Parts: sequence; C-alpha cells; structure tokens
Amino acid sequence: MLTDPDVAASYARDQTFLEPGKPLCAVAAQTRDDVVATMRWATEHRVPVVPRGAGTGLAGGATAVEGCVMLSLARMTEIRELSPADEIAVVEPGVITADLDRAARAHGLMYAPDPSSYEISTIGGNLATNAGGLRCVKYGVTRDSTLGLEVVLADGRLLTTGRRTMKGVTGYDLTGLFVGSEGTLGVITSATLRLRRAPAAPPVTVAAEFPSQRAAGDAVAAIVAAGCRPSLLELMDRNTLKAIDDWKNIGLDAGVQAMLIAQSEGELPGSADAMARLCEANGASFVAMSSSPEEADELIGLRRLAYTAKERLGACLVEDVCVPRSVLPDMITIIEETAARHDTLICTVAHAGDGNLHPVFIFDRGLSEPPANVWAAADEVFRAALRLGGTLTGEHGVGLLKRRWLGLESGPVVSEVQQKIKQVFDPLGILNPGKAI
Amino acid sequence: MLTDPDVAASYARDQTFLEPGKPLCAVAAQTRDDVVATMRWATEHRVPVVPRGAGTGLAGGATAVEGCVMLSLARMTEIRELSPADEIAVVEPGVITADLDRAARAHGLMYAPDPSSYEISTIGGNLATNAGGLRCVKYGVTRDSTLGLEVVLADGRLLTTGRRTMKGVTGYDLTGLFVGSEGTLGVITSATLRLRRAPAAPPVTVAAEFPSQRAAGDAVAAIVAAGCRPSLLELMDRNTLKAIDDWKNIGLDAGVQAMLIAQSEGELPGSADAMARLCEANGASFVAMSSSPEEADELIGLRRLAYTAKERLGACLVEDVCVPRSVLPDMITIIEETAARHDTLICTVAHAGDGNLHPVFIFDRGLSEPPANVWAAADEVFRAALRLGGTLTGEHGVGLLKRRWLGLESGPVVSEVQQKIKQVFDPLGILNPGKAI
Repeated sequence: MLTDPDVAASYARDQTFLEPGKPLCAVAAQTRDDVVATMRWATEHRVPVVPRGAGTGLAGGATAVEGCVMLSLARMTEIRELSPADEIAVVEPGVITADLDRAARAHGLMYAPDPSSYEISTIGGNLATNAGGLRCVKYGVTRDSTLGLEVVLADGRLLTTGRRTMKGVTGYDLTGLFVGSEGTLGVITSATLRLRRAPAAPPVTVAAEFPSQRAAGDAVAAIVAAGCRPSLLELMDRNTLKAIDDWKNIGLDAGVQAMLIAQSEGELPGSADAMARLCEANGASFVAMSSSPEEADELIGLRRLAYTAKERLGACLVEDVCVPRSVLPDMITIIEETAARHDTLICTVAHAGDGNLHPVFIFDRGLSEPPANVWAAADEVFRAALRLGGTLTGEHGVGLLKRRWLGLESGPVVSEVQQKIKQVFDPLGILNPGKAI
Repeated sequence: MLTDPDVAASYARDQTFLEPGKPLCAVAAQTRDDVVATMRWATEHRVPVVPRGAGTGLAGGATAVEGCVMLSLARMTEIRELSPADEIAVVEPGVITADLDRAARAHGLMYAPDPSSYEISTIGGNLATNAGGLRCVKYGVTRDSTLGLEVVLADGRLLTTGRRTMKGVTGYDLTGLFVGSEGTLGVITSATLRLRRAPAAPPVTVAAEFPSQRAAGDAVAAIVAAGCRPSLLELMDRNTLKAIDDWKNIGLDAGVQAMLIAQSEGELPGSADAMARLCEANGASFVAMSSSPEEADELIGLRRLAYTAKERLGACLVEDVCVPRSVLPDMITIIEETAARHDTLICTVAHAGDGNLHPVFIFDRGLSEPPANVWAAADEVFRAALRLGGTLTGEHGVGLLKRRWLGLESGPVVSEVQQKIKQVFDPLGILNPGKAI
C-alpha cells in the first residue's frame, strides 16, 4: 500500500489529458489475496477502487476518481501455465502483452491481440478494454482470445467464469461480459487465453503511397470487397507520416498524402499481389512488396510509433471510431473536411481492414483541456461515424472521455439494462465509478 | 395464435425424449410486432413464454412448460440485408441456417456456423444455444459470427445490441450475453451476422479408418499438437458407423472401430498430407485423400446423418461434453469403459478438433425416460468430462436435460450472479422458466 501522496498520484493518470482526482492511496497487488483484501476493505468502508494495468489507456478508463484506491495489477506478472497441446495460456493480469506473445512463439504459437502499445500494455488492461490491434483484422480482438477468467468481485468474493475448452455454453457468457467492462464489474486476477499457431512462413508485406487519403481509403474498400484476407491492413495519413518523419527522418516525399501497409500470411495464394494491384488501380504513386521480415518489422515498427510521434506535437485527444468498411473512404473525407472547417490538426491512423480509425486531435500542451474548436471537431467526427452506421469506440473503450457521446449510440433501454447489470456486480457502486457506461 | 390443443402440442417438443408440459397455445409470429404483442400480453397476465425455432434442439431448451405460450419464430424467414462489401447479413430468426449460407455463397461468401442440423435448424435456435458445428474448428461458434441483435424483452420493450462494424466496445457485451441464453433473457427478432469469404478452392479431404477408438483419438491429439489447422476434424465410432451402415449400406469393414474425417482449406501447405501421415503413424488401417468436392460432400453428408441414423436404434439421450483436446483420447476411453460397465449402447461422434464429443446413449423407445443404467452411465461421462477440465455442453446448451449436473460445473457464486442477471431482464420469470441456468 502506497500512501505517499506523490507516489499515489503517479498511479492516477492514463495517457489522456484528463485531470485525475486525488487518490487516497495506491495498492500494488502482488497476489490474488491482495486484491481480495483490498476489495473487502473497500466494500466495508465504501471507498471507490480504480483498477489499473500499465496506464496506457487512451480513454480515461483508469483515471483516478477523488478519494479512490488505485489498485494496480502491474506486479502480478506470472504466466502460470502455457500448454502447447491445448493451445492455451493461464496468465496473471500484469503480464505485458508482447511478453506473452514471445513466450508462445517459443512453442510455435502466438498470442494474437497486439494493440500498438503491446510492448508496454498489460493483459489486464487489454481485457478491460477488449483491446484490438494490428493483427485483429485476421485474428479478432481480445474477447475472441479469452476462454475464462478469475475475477474478484466488489465484495471480495471470487468468481470463476468460462472454461479451458475451445467451446462451451454452460450458463450465460460472463467471460464476454467482463471483457471490455473497463474495471466496472470486478477485478480480473487471472485469465485463460487462447493461443494460435504462429504463421509458418514470414508474411508478404505491401507498402503503398497515395496522393490523397481518399484514394488510400478507396484501396482499402477495394481490398476488403475483393476478399484478399489481409492479416494486417494499416493506414497512416500525411500528418501522421510527417510527425514520424520529423522525429525519425524517414524521407517522406512531398506528394504523399497517405500510406497503406498490408500483409498477407499466404493462406490465399496471390493475395499480396492482388492487394498491390488494387493499390495501383486506386491511384497509388508508389507500391513496394517484400517478404523480408526485417523490412516488415521496420515498417510496422514505424506504425507502432505513430502515437508517440503525435505526442511530440502537443496534447492529444484520441478518437477510436469504427465504421462499416464500405464507408471508410467517406469517413476519411469527413475527417479531412472537419479538420479544415475547425482549423484543427488531426493526425489519423487506421486499422483500416476493420474500419477502425484513430483521428488524433492535437492541441496546445499548456491547456488543461482541448479548446472549443477541438471539442467541436471531435463532436462532428463522432456524430458522422454513428451516422455512417459506426460506433464511438472500436478498441479503446468509453472510459471518461466518450461518456458525453454515449447517449447518441446507446438508447435508454440499453442504458437502463447496463446500469442494472452493473448493480448486480457492484451494488455499492465502488468499482471504477463514473466510467464506461 | 393456435389454440387447438393438438396443434399447440405439436409445438411443445424438441428432439429430446423429455415429456413437455401442456401449452396454453402456440403463437406463430410473422413480424416483430407479433412478438411485442405476445410479450406484452404475457407480462400483463404473467404467463410463461417458451420461444422456439425449428425444434431441433437436443437439450430440452424449447420444451413446453405447463400453461405456456409456445412462441414460434419459424415464420420470420426474411434475409433483410446481405452486404458483400461489409461482409454482413441482417436476418430474421426463422431463417434456416443453410439457406443463409447458400445466399452468402452467391456472393463468394459463407455463413460459417453449421450445426449438423443446419438444413432444418434456424438462426434463432442457433443463437439461443450458441450452436457450433463441423466448421467451427476453424471459424468459431455462432457467437463469433454475431455482431448485433434486436431483442424483444419480457415486457415487450425493444433492445438493440451491438453493431454493424467488425469491432466495437461501447458498453457491456449484451450481444454475447443473449447468444447462448436459451430464450431466458429475451426473444431475438433480428440478428446482424458476420459473413466470411468462402474458400477459393475446394478443401482436401482425408478419411482414415482405425482399429480402435483410442487410436483415432490419439491421431486427433497429434493433429492438434502438430498445428495442422484443419477446417473440419470429425470422429465417428463403430456404433455410429454401424448405425449408418445398417441404414445406408456403406460397406463397413469388420475391423473398423472408428473413422476420422479431416479437411484442410489449404492455408497451410501440406496440412492434408501431414494429417494423413499422422493418422498412419497412429495406427490407421486405411487412409484416403481426395480433393473432389463430390467425394467430400458424400463423406460429410454421412456424418451429418449420424444423429438420424441413431434415432433409428431407439430413443436417445445426447451428451455434448467438451474437453481440452490433449485429453480427448482419455475421454474416449472413459466413454468406452462406461458403456461396458453399465451395459449401455453408446454411439459417439465428435467434433474432435474442438474436443467436443457427442456420446449418444440409446434406450428403449417404449420407455418415457432413460432407465437407471443409462442415467448412471450419462452421469459418469459428465463427471469425467469435468474432472478432465471440460464442460457439460459445448454447443447444445443446458436446457432441461443438463440442469441436474449444472451445480457440478457452476459454483454458487456463478449461479447467484446468473440468477440476478436473469432478474434484470425478466423480473417476473416468464421467459422460458426452468431452463439453462
């Protein structure tokens, strides 16, 4: 238990600009029993608890509320079991996502979900937000890799959900309910995760530069419609590329307005060729193909740096809208027009193969919150995504940041039902209050 | 509304031996408004409602309770939308599963979940039980293909869950909660489903005959452990093969104790060869490989007839245990030993690639329920599956049939939480009372 106010305060923020409340203390749990003790005490004294992984969240899901216990799971880092025969792992919530992936690779397996932050984010945080990533266009999101959970409830009781088997329908899907619940229903202390076979051969990587964002978006829609089945399909706009170029000096050409990076793991022969041709047919000014793992790692490494590159420009408001893939070009155009209309710098990256866009609104770091023009631009982008049949958040969660728009997506019946489900698990309302729903 | 007692009674059973209660009437809904009107009336008068698709269930989930309204969704058969660009379909619950698959194939797509009954089962029934099937070893179960739902709640209010996009984490996963809830939380009136690209080339099919069931089970474990990634991996024991042979005269050889059917869709070059070799290495007496779609359809057609072939032998108690795949050979041995010890005829088929076994216990059709030795054998098999780290039901649901074993898998905390979730959606307890949880 860390009661020094400065130390406790160091647990109070995630990656957002949102100003946290002042925590009562932080608890750095090392065992399940530490979590049980914390929750029993919190229930007895009716003190709010904010569970937290590595603090890499982008929606304020782990932002401290006034007088709370910040319950960090980051020290629970054991991979308790890794079974190649059953293709599962049982892990504690503080395991770093990429560490689990590396442990699996030693057996020819992989842990598929790979948020951009996977070298620093934890499995527990990934579970809380149902994190996606670059590979999820092929392998699905965190929920798709979660078979079972051990959860400490608000009152300290233990709940075990799910199973070790590939399938199972005994009772309601409590596992799925906890994944993505942003720490509002319970504290996950162990997860049984599905591993997958790692690809046998290195993927073929396609990189294409476009003279407009719209053209890159059209190429994505064409790739999806042609059934190319990429294992990765990422888009970066010029502002993002420029932020990376300013930092890493990648030699960005003047006319490049967008770049696509695609990969194919070869289950569909000719898929990479087809994607390259579709990029050309949709106006790409330059297309390269490679099956070199080093070149692929370099390109994808740049993509994973995108968020850090943007943080160098100023404070960031990060959106995470997801739209049906056929309207991705429309959404891209709307984002560009919105930036111009509100005189706002927006840098966009997209998990384009899923229709999931991250427009990042840059504003002056000296401000405590975004200025009016940024809020207005953000509002327009959220509303446009919903109008196009999309959703507010593809993989980051609602947290605190998106609560002001929640009512636009979830009607009153959904809202009522979710509040009642929350009451089932947390009748005193002490678990991460004010977040997610 | 069908009030004639004989007509209403014709809606009262599923495929189990379980004796239904006498329904008050049946309602054959043709529109969402029919469902709304039914639920409003049922809430007002506190009358139980049992939702029902095609009645192909194997666990008593759609068995009438005394004095209930049998609410059939089988006439709501419209495919409202099929979008190749977004790879989704929006369908009513009465659509026959294979009809949706065929409609998707016309666009180079497929609807992946394919329970053996898919030519007669409905999407609504598949959603209620989170149905699996033969292809789910590669493509996942019904929940993995469900993006969003429209649900009529117990009081007649409408709830819309989920989304049209590939990803989304706005609020709790209500979609996943309804899938597999066996009609106890609401009545699904529309589903937004994910389609997938159909394989470009016909799969390679491997058929192998074994001199013992254990050897076939060992071959399955070896195929999984070697990472062959089959798109289908089915096992039939001798009793099943004999039931099919007696009916269809397939020329079953005397020494064949089990048959494996495997398919590879070619994303892993050499996978079919590797599976064939692993069958030989594990003692197969005969192995054949073919890329002829006709031969594949014939073999898999036989597999899909397995349940009907068994019904010719007598009344059936169908289990649906699922175990970690590494212990599949052990589970097979236990089933054989149990059959011998209790002098019971058990015919087993398995979605072996998922570790999901269907031991079918045959008993005299003249009896109203299984005799004591069958119950005892069934009990042993369920307990063994749980002891091996498995689950009571992989894809059929709990229904009425498995409630007596539910407490062995779901502890008191899970049970309490599930009852409370039920109360959130159905405070009067009128929706399919006594089922599933």
